Amino acid sequence: MRDFNYYAPTQVVFGEHSEEQVADLVRKYGGHKVLVHYGGKSAIKSGLLDKICSLLKSGGLEMVQLGGVVPNPRLSKVHEGIELCRREGVDFLLAVGGGSVIDSLKAIAYGVPFDGEVWDIYTGKAEPETSLPVACVLTIPAAGSEMSDSSVITNEDGDYKIGYSNNLCRPKFAIMNPCRTFTLPPYQTAAGVTDIMMHTMERYFSHDNDMTLTDAVAEALLRTMKQCIFAVLKDPEDYRNRAQIMWGGSLAHNDLTGCGLQGDWATHQLEHELSGMFDVTHGAGLAAVWPAWARYVYKEDVSRFVQFAVNVMDVPNDFSDPEGTALRGIEAVENFYHAIGMPARIHELLGRDVTDEEIREMARKCSQDGAITVGSFKVLAREDMEAVYKLAR
Amino acid sequence: MRDFNYYAPTQVVFGEHSEEQVADLVRKYGGHKVLVHYGGKSAIKSGLLDKICSLLKSGGLEMVQLGGVVPNPRLSKVHEGIELCRREGVDFLLAVGGGSVIDSLKAIAYGVPFDGEVWDIYTGKAEPETSLPVACVLTIPAAGSEMSDSSVITNEDGDYKIGYSNNLCRPKFAIMNPCRTFTLPPYQTAAGVTDIMMHTMERYFSHDNDMTLTDAVAEALLRTMKQCIFAVLKDPEDYRNRAQIMWGGSLAHNDLTGCGLQGDWATHQLEHELSGMFDVTHGAGLAAVWPAWARYVYKEDVSRFVQFAVNVMDVPNDFSDPEGTALRGIEAVENFYHAIGMPARIHELLGRDVTDEEIREMARKCSQDGAITVGSFKVLAREDMEAVYKLAR
Repeated sequence: MRDFNYYAPTQVVFGEHSEEQVADLVRKYGGHKVLVHYGGKSAIKSGLLDKICSLLKSGGLEMVQLGGVVPNPRLSKVHEGIELCRREGVDFLLAVGGGSVIDSLKAIAYGVPFDGEVWDIYTGKAEPETSLPVACVLTIPAAGSEMSDSSVITNEDGDYKIGYSNNLCRPKFAIMNPCRTFTLPPYQTAAGVTDIMMHTMERYFSHDNDMTLTDAVAEALLRTMKQCIFAVLKDPEDYRNRAQIMWGGSLAHNDLTGCGLQGDWATHQLEHELSGMFDVTHGAGLAAVWPAWARYVYKEDVSRFVQFAVNVMDVPNDFSDPEGTALRGIEAVENFYHAIGMPARIHELLGRDVTDEEIREMARKCSQDGAITVGSFKVLAREDMEAVYKLAR
Repeated sequence: MRDFNYYAPTQVVFGEHSEEQVADLVRKYGGHKVLVHYGGKSAIKSGLLDKICSLLKSGGLEMVQLGGVVPNPRLSKVHEGIELCRREGVDFLLAVGGGSVIDSLKAIAYGVPFDGEVWDIYTGKAEPETSLPVACVLTIPAAGSEMSDSSVITNEDGDYKIGYSNNLCRPKFAIMNPCRTFTLPPYQTAAGVTDIMMHTMERYFSHDNDMTLTDAVAEALLRTMKQCIFAVLKDPEDYRNRAQIMWGGSLAHNDLTGCGLQGDWATHQLEHELSGMFDVTHGAGLAAVWPAWARYVYKEDVSRFVQFAVNVMDVPNDFSDPEGTALRGIEAVENFYHAIGMPARIHELLGRDVTDEEIREMARKCSQDGAITVGSFKVLAREDMEAVYKLAR
């Protein structure tokens, strides 16, 4: 078991009428002039953007808007936001959307008071000393960015997608109304749940297997998500199950499910290159990579994969054949992905085979030209990355 | 399912070497002159108090000490602390101990800047507008006060024990080193685990039974505690299991296990009168009351008690006899209490029968002379309180 630091200070305001509190919350956390940051047409079409803006206005707050954030959010939009905030004297940042919008906003939060190029923070060349306060009205349960310290930005100049973590940008508050997720299409819903589960699975596959409370909570969360997704695919307006998924997305990535464990983020890092190169949905990309990663690494600790198979995937434990049980757990994940409309291989994701050339290029980027490894359950060097991509193709 | 607000901003620094960070943490949260608040001889004998004080000193911080906090902490000690802090210009409050020390300190935190009698805050006659910052070095996993918004104080003038909750006094940080719990005697250890489990059980027994993620997390926590206690009773220096209990104590009472549920705090309120009158260990008092409470109320929702019996207490589900399953779950709790050295009735707790007169007096106080009810799973009026105490005798 590892020593750990747990810090999840975001105030979560959860429920059907939670949006009504937005102006009070902004004022409580010191905001006067707000950047309202959003993505595309869905926030406009649903009326949510209008509602939030008029609540802020009637709450006596000034605001400016910046829309147009796309999935795998771009550095150019971050630059635009930094410019706008400086010009307008914005002192509070509010995202209305999902992970891409929140992540873009976190980068803006670092960038506004930072004297330099914000991308240098993501590449590790610079460290932010402060940031503007960030908060969100969540519409897509997936990234967990609403309680996390992390954000992921894509530099379109070279298609580099890099994540950066710092407690400075943990959102002050997160407003979560499950009704706002009713209109999410099935594919986005399933990709979101895949991402949520993966945030916990990447923590779970660890050689630290003596933190039984963390394991029990993680398994509880994974089992619940695995169950709820079928209900909402059947009935998109199932409030009860939409609520579990929405709250699950936050708990899966606010560090609760990793307390005392080292964690292994290889699947995320391998996927970042996939969505950086092909602009696919992050959750679907994770589903396409994880089974191959699992088959490549499971022998590092078969018992951990047996525990996962039995406690999460409901695979009967064949005590005489741990390896078989472990592999049946991986198969059960593949079957689960297919059942919810997710891919379990890259060709299912892209609709075509990935070429050897593309695999080499992704492994080159992921390993930073061979300079770094990823993962800890099994440490993956550049050639291992190529092997996993090939297994996943 | 209920709308909810989840806010648990305490920074948890967990592990064997966590104490080393105490001075940095106090400075990070704005402290210059620290009141170090502690209980009795154990903090001195173990060397922990000395260690903390010398770490603060070498970290450039001033300090004053106030010891002598007793279980079921007294208002007079709170007054003494308020006086001392005002006189010495203390700006940061650090508890070294368990729930009683932290709760006493929270009352001091309200009292120092408050122009009036601090007890009025507990009785609801006054509301604090601010408080001094509070933090702790935890030594007893039980009360969960290290991450909670609540504190319970006993006014020895009439033996009133009253709890008060306010986010103002959520600790800024909590240092948790499981090694510090190795010397806890078996009775205190078991009473602590009983208290921890009860903090989650009081939230769990709710008519809001559609928050499946909260249920799953709560059941995971309860099962883990139920298992770990036997390991530490066998080997008090079992770091792994001491760690689960220590972290479980925080998660059981930082509101995580109650998100979306109304909760029912009747057992706690009935017990407060018991420990107010007889000065017994809080956790043991809860064990003496809960089985009677459960038998008195289970018919309000048999299925909830069946879920608890099966998912937490490992009672086989007799599908043809839900009531029998529910009752076997309550029996299983009684057997569990006995197995860990806890009482399951008041006479086992006190070593004598409680009199009708004493029962009437406890119900009178608990109901504030019949003015209030307690609980929500079943609302208990004064006569119900008497009935539960009688069942529990």
